[in-house]
Amino acid sequence: MNNFVFQNPTKLIFGRGEIAKLSQELPKDKKIMVTFGGGSVKRNGVYDQVVAALEGFDFVEFWGIEPNPKVETLRKAVEQCKREGVEFLLAVGGGSTLDGTKLIAAAAVVDCDAWELVRNPKLYAGTLPFASVMTLPATGSEMNRGAVISNLSTGEKYSFYNTFPLFSILDPEATFTLPPFQVACGLADTFVHIMEQYLTVTECSPLIDRWAEGVVQTVVEVAPKVRANQHDYDAMATYMLSATMGLNGFVAMGVPQDWATHMIGHEITALTGTTHGQTLVIVLPGVMNVMREQKGDKIVQFGERVWGVREGSKDERIDRTIEATEQFFRSLGLATRLSELSIGEDVVTEIVRRFRERGTLLGENKNIDYRLVETILRQRM
Amino acid sequence: MNNFVFQNPTKLIFGRGEIAKLSQELPKDKKIMVTFGGGSVKRNGVYDQVVAALEGFDFVEFWGIEPNPKVETLRKAVEQCKREGVEFLLAVGGGSTLDGTKLIAAAAVVDCDAWELVRNPKLYAGTLPFASVMTLPATGSEMNRGAVISNLSTGEKYSFYNTFPLFSILDPEATFTLPPFQVACGLADTFVHIMEQYLTVTECSPLIDRWAEGVVQTVVEVAPKVRANQHDYDAMATYMLSATMGLNGFVAMGVPQDWATHMIGHEITALTGTTHGQTLVIVLPGVMNVMREQKGDKIVQFGERVWGVREGSKDERIDRTIEATEQFFRSLGLATRLSELSIGEDVVTEIVRRFRERGTLLGENKNIDYRLVETILRQRM
Repeated sequence: MNNFVFQNPTKLIFGRGEIAKLSQELPKDKKIMVTFGGGSVKRNGVYDQVVAALEGFDFVEFWGIEPNPKVETLRKAVEQCKREGVEFLLAVGGGSTLDGTKLIAAAAVVDCDAWELVRNPKLYAGTLPFASVMTLPATGSEMNRGAVISNLSTGEKYSFYNTFPLFSILDPEATFTLPPFQVACGLADTFVHIMEQYLTVTECSPLIDRWAEGVVQTVVEVAPKVRANQHDYDAMATYMLSATMGLNGFVAMGVPQDWATHMIGHEITALTGTTHGQTLVIVLPGVMNVMREQKGDKIVQFGERVWGVREGSKDERIDRTIEATEQFFRSLGLATRLSELSIGEDVVTEIVRRFRERGTLLGENKNIDYRLVETILRQRM
Repeated sequence: MNNFVFQNPTKLIFGRGEIAKLSQELPKDKKIMVTFGGGSVKRNGVYDQVVAALEGFDFVEFWGIEPNPKVETLRKAVEQCKREGVEFLLAVGGGSTLDGTKLIAAAAVVDCDAWELVRNPKLYAGTLPFASVMTLPATGSEMNRGAVISNLSTGEKYSFYNTFPLFSILDPEATFTLPPFQVACGLADTFVHIMEQYLTVTECSPLIDRWAEGVVQTVVEVAPKVRANQHDYDAMATYMLSATMGLNGFVAMGVPQDWATHMIGHEITALTGTTHGQTLVIVLPGVMNVMREQKGDKIVQFGERVWGVREGSKDERIDRTIEATEQFFRSLGLATRLSELSIGEDVVTEIVRRFRERGTLLGENKNIDYRLVETILRQRM
């Protein structure tokens, strides 16, 4: 086991009707900005619950944080925060709304431009406190420090780190009316978040391996229930909790991490606008196959414990495990090949060019260079 | 899934050599009391590491917090804190040292007696900040709010709740020289902590079930390695992490809890001084057997996933699961019957009398009364 430091102070408030607790959790004496996405919270009743809970509070609303939140939009919110003296931020929506809010909160307390802050973490100088009401289980943003921010003008997409949300309220009923494609991508995103933290070496931390496998097993078991009936409270609650636990540091304790699939997936999104979770399920089988020597023992353990693959040579077991993984993604109704989304040669060439130019090396051993990225993507055409 | 609120702000600093980080984590401008048990930290090198890290800090030492910490001892530390203006507490030792320190920290800021504070939580009025260097994996105290305090003069043992430790440093090397009996009891304690949070109903939270089973599976797998070689770093690290994760709220999210085994076990300890983990492994098979109707589905799930019990009628599967559980406890070298420890009729009678007098009802459904306690204990004679 590697040495590690773990700390996650976010207060997680989970369950039916819990949005009403906003009135207890929010500061009564601070000017609050409530941030939203495109308006789905008006259709699913969350907006009304939030506004009811905020009666008597001093708050302004900021609308329009889009999927893959754009710095161009966030800059407007930062300006409004500064202008109106906002002291606390509450994100109401999915991972993108919260990710964008993490940048707004940090950019509101510095003089530099928000994109400079993304590109140069040294400019970080603290944050306005922030919290969330999460409506789309996927990114784990509700219980971690991370955000992913896009720049429309440069076609770039980068990670940004703030502190943790003070609290996050998750009511599974808010997910009942999500578009099925978003739910499928959320299940996929959760699955791949675990794999990024899990699919490296065996025997580093037997307990954390069990927990990672436990999240994936749960996602695999609950996915058909979720897809059959999005009003099944227990199924949606299990999906929602799995998404949060998939990326809050719990299964990262003392183990190496990969994240190559995400790095490659981010480039596909940046260039084509493809939904994040959808990009991941295309890339992951390629990473597993191309890195089969380095990751072989862990792929075998994964296949055995999650898919019940117990027979055959090591190579056969790896093949069957990758197949079962891709099959699961297909069962979610997602594409697992670039060609299915009409993503072609030009996008692959540009992604490879970017990795070559940046000299980025990916994976737990930092040995996936632009050439291996190309091999991975060509296998997923 | 039940609604829940989860928050655990403790900073966990885990690994070889990490005790040196005390110098970064402790407040430089505060008077610190370092609390210890009986002196094992002088033999395993932990004391020297702590003192080296504390160079330049203003600290006093308090020695002699015993296993099942006694309020009579803790009162002396409280008095010293008040007299010398102590502002921060650092517990260095096992769960008992930290449990005792949690009471010292709270009692140091109130005027009432420490035992009054244990018996009447309404008297709680905050705490001195505290942290720990944990040397005996068992209680999970390093990452939770709980403590168990004994009163020598009344022969009582009760739970007490403070806030969370600010940080806890866990170096698995500190466990290399633990007495094997303590290690066996620590493994047993971890196992039973999970069972108290797990062995209730099925299908309440599939993810949390998987995590609970994951901790038990890990303990079962690592126990023989730990018992074969206490200098096996990875095995001791896995045992240590499992103990912390077994009782820090992670596997309690959204599920009912039992705790009957602990409540009965505490009485055995209070009356006979038997080590906590040892009492639990005697009681648990009795609780499983006597509550087999209520807990049957979960016992079957547990048997299947942890012990591989897949055949036979439901009753047969329950029997085999209880057998396998008792067998595991015996493999740790622990007694699983009261008679093996020469605990007889008189102790059982007194425990039953106490539960009858108090009218306490135990278990997730609060339906284990003094009569069922008697049945459970008689089955474990």
